Amino acid sequence: MTVHVGTFHSEDDILNTLGRYFPLRKPGILLGRGDDCALLPAGKPLSVSTDLFLEDVHFRRSYCSAEEIGHKALACNISDLAACGTRPLAFTLNLGLPADLDNAWFNAFLSGMGSLAAKYNMALIGGDLSRTRDLQISVTVMGEVIGEGAFLSRGGSMPGDVIFVVGALGLARVGLQELEAHGREAVQEWPKACQALLKPEPRVDAGLMLARVAMNARPPALMDVSDGLVRDLPRLLGQTGEMGVWGEHGSGLGAELIIPAGLLQAELLEWSRRHGRNPVHEALIGGDDYALLGSCAPDMLSALHAAIPDFWEIGVVTEGEAIYCNREPLSSLEGFDHFSSQG
Amino acid sequence: MTVHVGTFHSEDDILNTLGRYFPLRKPGILLGRGDDCALLPAGKPLSVSTDLFLEDVHFRRSYCSAEEIGHKALACNISDLAACGTRPLAFTLNLGLPADLDNAWFNAFLSGMGSLAAKYNMALIGGDLSRTRDLQISVTVMGEVIGEGAFLSRGGSMPGDVIFVVGALGLARVGLQELEAHGREAVQEWPKACQALLKPEPRVDAGLMLARVAMNARPPALMDVSDGLVRDLPRLLGQTGEMGVWGEHGSGLGAELIIPAGLLQAELLEWSRRHGRNPVHEALIGGDDYALLGSCAPDMLSALHAAIPDFWEIGVVTEGEAIYCNREPLSSLEGFDHFSSQG
Repeated sequence: MTVHVGTFHSEDDILNTLGRYFPLRKPGILLGRGDDCALLPAGKPLSVSTDLFLEDVHFRRSYCSAEEIGHKALACNISDLAACGTRPLAFTLNLGLPADLDNAWFNAFLSGMGSLAAKYNMALIGGDLSRTRDLQISVTVMGEVIGEGAFLSRGGSMPGDVIFVVGALGLARVGLQELEAHGREAVQEWPKACQALLKPEPRVDAGLMLARVAMNARPPALMDVSDGLVRDLPRLLGQTGEMGVWGEHGSGLGAELIIPAGLLQAELLEWSRRHGRNPVHEALIGGDDYALLGSCAPDMLSALHAAIPDFWEIGVVTEGEAIYCNREPLSSLEGFDHFSSQG
Repeated sequence: MTVHVGTFHSEDDILNTLGRYFPLRKPGILLGRGDDCALLPAGKPLSVSTDLFLEDVHFRRSYCSAEEIGHKALACNISDLAACGTRPLAFTLNLGLPADLDNAWFNAFLSGMGSLAAKYNMALIGGDLSRTRDLQISVTVMGEVIGEGAFLSRGGSMPGDVIFVVGALGLARVGLQELEAHGREAVQEWPKACQALLKPEPRVDAGLMLARVAMNARPPALMDVSDGLVRDLPRLLGQTGEMGVWGEHGSGLGAELIIPAGLLQAELLEWSRRHGRNPVHEALIGGDDYALLGSCAPDMLSALHAAIPDFWEIGVVTEGEAIYCNREPLSSLEGFDHFSSQG
């Protein structure tokens, strides 16, 4: 770890504090943090992902506790490992800390992050700290592929495949709007929605289960829903994405979704009723739920239903690039609400 | 890549711009960016390091060009890979961009970073972009160990080992002080010193050469000099570092350094003369040079001299924890100048 925090703490204080929440050594890591580089073993291909988690862009300190910020900064990254069916292994942490954060805040932050890291047995293998005006967190995660062919990409959907989701849709969006409007008090009235926004649980076990299935069959296509189904489903179908990546397999696909309102979370239904919104639209637009979104051959369904809690089918992959949900074109919801990009 | 930049550019614009400077695919990378995770091959142990590079903490836009900022943000990280004798492979980039940076700046920044990445054949395998108040860059690099036992750590120095440096000491410090005082004009009068600060070259070839030597002998101890010899040499000798890392081999060591002023860079000597400073003290205090600092058995010296340009011996490892340079205790320079912590 490198540390440039001016008068915040001494470097030794900070390293000792880190040591309390993140062991220096872990089985499976050849060399932990403390040298110029850490060293990861050679055995398995490594999945890598990284995300920024920034104050007043991705979270607010006014209604997110230090523990929740620490948890979510890592959880969003772990969700990307889950979305590839890989097992969390290690991460690096770059932190910019404003001057008004004290030692208690820092400990609570590390405690939230450390609990999640411990749950998945992840090692903190490096990082950097500096004094900044806004709180800013940059995490890079590394995961292991669990076997031959077990890395799940977004590509590979075929017409007739079933589209599925693992987890809730639209719940975090309710939490975001209520927390923005009413602050922390919103937790009392909308506990599940606020929990979904404040402390999302990455779907690691579901990702690994899907990866196991992939080792003996045509692999499911998989991603996590971070920007909402309206934006993410076209990516799964290869309609958008970084230039040239998906041309080979994804383009030319569409979807017909059937999402009965009755399958949505009770708090989303109640919130929509009160605000005169269509709950299915909210579910399609809502981001930040960190559900998994995928497609697979229909003959995998019974095994996946049996093995994965919160697994539900939402439609089928079709030919042609149109996407419908309950017979409405999904494109009519694009640009519907930019508030969600805050979350 | 995830992108949250509001009105800065469209996401497609940014992804296309990135694509111009960083190819999506590279030999040796199983899956590049564009999915939830990239995928690195399983063949060799991977070295990992990460650093923040922040406006007005680590650099200033007033006298650093966009190209130089892009170059140095990556160079500082590559230097950590070099300091472990590992070969650069890939990196992730998290960027916070202020609203006043335009497309030309962004292109120049990527060009500076892209040239250095191309030099070492590194793939950009993931990242995140957001709108921020200050320019902030967070890079995580991954490198490959080139063979059995070829990872060089800071540990393992023994009494009688020769202490060596690859590259200049104190030159970037002159550049920093002149650029801080006079802005970009300082480049005219102190070209090498400013170049050392603005566009450091990581010592990758030297690190790899030292790693090759390590495969057939007791490995050299190695690190890069980022905070100045006064702070970094005690780390090499195991006197400081993250708790518990070095207890097993490093403690109880000291050093006797002999650094004749005549071996220092001409600009450092001239600058010290003009400012009434001791050039050797400046060389010991100065950080940000990204020289390599190491120790090795004396019988390796002739091979290393022959193979590594800018390799020079500066002293020997001794028993006991005292460090002297030209018979003065190094501890007398500790805390001498906190200006250097800015760079």
